[in-house]
Amino acid sequence: MKMKAHTEKLRFKTEKKMDFVNITQRVQNAVEKSKIKEGLCLVNSMHITSSVFINDEESGLKQDFFAWLDNLAPELEDYKHNESGEDNAHAHLKRTIMGREVVVAVTKGELDLGPYEEIFYGEFDGQRDKNVLIKVIGE
Amino acid sequence: MKMKAHTEKLRFKTEKKMDFVNITQRVQNAVEKSKIKEGLCLVNSMHITSSVFINDEESGLKQDFFAWLDNLAPELEDYKHNESGEDNAHAHLKRTIMGREVVVAVTKGELDLGPYEEIFYGEFDGQRDKNVLIKVIGE
Amino acid sequence: MKMKAHTEKLRFKTEKKMDFVNITQRVQNAVEKSKIKEGLCLVNSMHITSSVFINDEESGLKQDFFAWLDNLAPELEDYKHNESGEDNAHAHLKRTIMGREVVVAVTKGELDLGPYEEIFYGEFDGQRDKNVLIKVIGE
Repeated sequence: MKMKAHTEKLRFKTEKKMDFVNITQRVQNAVEKSKIKEGLCLVNSMHITSSVFINDEESGLKQDFFAWLDNLAPELEDYKHNESGEDNAHAHLKRTIMGREVVVAVTKGELDLGPYEEIFYGEFDGQRDKNVLIKVIGE
Repeated sequence: MKMKAHTEKLRFKTEKKMDFVNITQRVQNAVEKSKIKEGLCLVNSMHITSSVFINDEESGLKQDFFAWLDNLAPELEDYKHNESGEDNAHAHLKRTIMGREVVVAVTKGELDLGPYEEIFYGEFDGQRDKNVLIKVIGE
Repeated sequence: MKMKAHTEKLRFKTEKKMDFVNITQRVQNAVEKSKIKEGLCLVNSMHITSSVFINDEESGLKQDFFAWLDNLAPELEDYKHNESGEDNAHAHLKRTIMGREVVVAVTKGELDLGPYEEIFYGEFDGQRDKNVLIKVIGE
């Protein structure tokens, strides 16, 4: 079979500084548009203070994640990075814990996800324009 | 060369709540079955309380990982997620640190791993049926 | 279009025990050499005490990362792994936080990176020979 590739970007500008946005359906739409039946789908943040990750669609868990991240990578003033005029060092650290990207299998034209797997855009320095890249390759 | 894809699932039901299972040979078997010589091999947990990751096959290090994860993401009762009837919020957090997936190069028909790289299934909410997905694409 | 694959290794021996080395240009060179126009580029550490990750080229932020990692995964003597004659358990943990690999889209023959995305080799047990694997597949 012939190899194909499909590229697409999603745009975000969250109202909150820290937020999780469920993008599973938008990624699935990109896979359908690609007409790729068997392959791999890369979904990555194009920014270094936000993430793409897979977890559960459950509101309590999201609050647990926010509190946990604030504990492991608190928003403090005394980061060296903030001497460069930035105030988002903590967002770089939070994104590191949550990860930059996911790679999902495409099987029979669909995202091959487990029963509770949902794909999220994770924002840690919001209220700005951000992009997520979707790249599907396969046949 | 023609593109090929191969899909396979591994099943797990660990005896312990938290456990690491070395799956390197099972992934290598899937690569051989695929007959793909050059490509990429995605190995991911299909669940949101378990991981696939690469590290060392050394029993002391495994204990260090367990203690470290219990420290960074302790099993407490007061997570918001646990108000939904779950008791595994800590397992979602532990899996986040360890990661959902690995992507390994396939070169000359074999997993192109470094000398000490071993692929593990990491379980943080065990004693249940779980699946790992292996997807190999290439030529 | 026909599928192609390209494999390349980068070698490192950092002077410091912990260091970040920007490898963006070297990965871009590998993509150009591959002549692949549309595909995926995997870049991974072949060792279990070092990382490949994407973040910002900013010296203050690097210091923040070093301090943060030393805090989350301190260099202590009482790790079980160190009973095996090793002294690098903390490096295994640090690398786990930073990740083993990145997968970057290749679009129109170039790494499809966001405006501040830079690819780094992250060393946590340096002063030894290490390798990074680059695998590009696509058309």
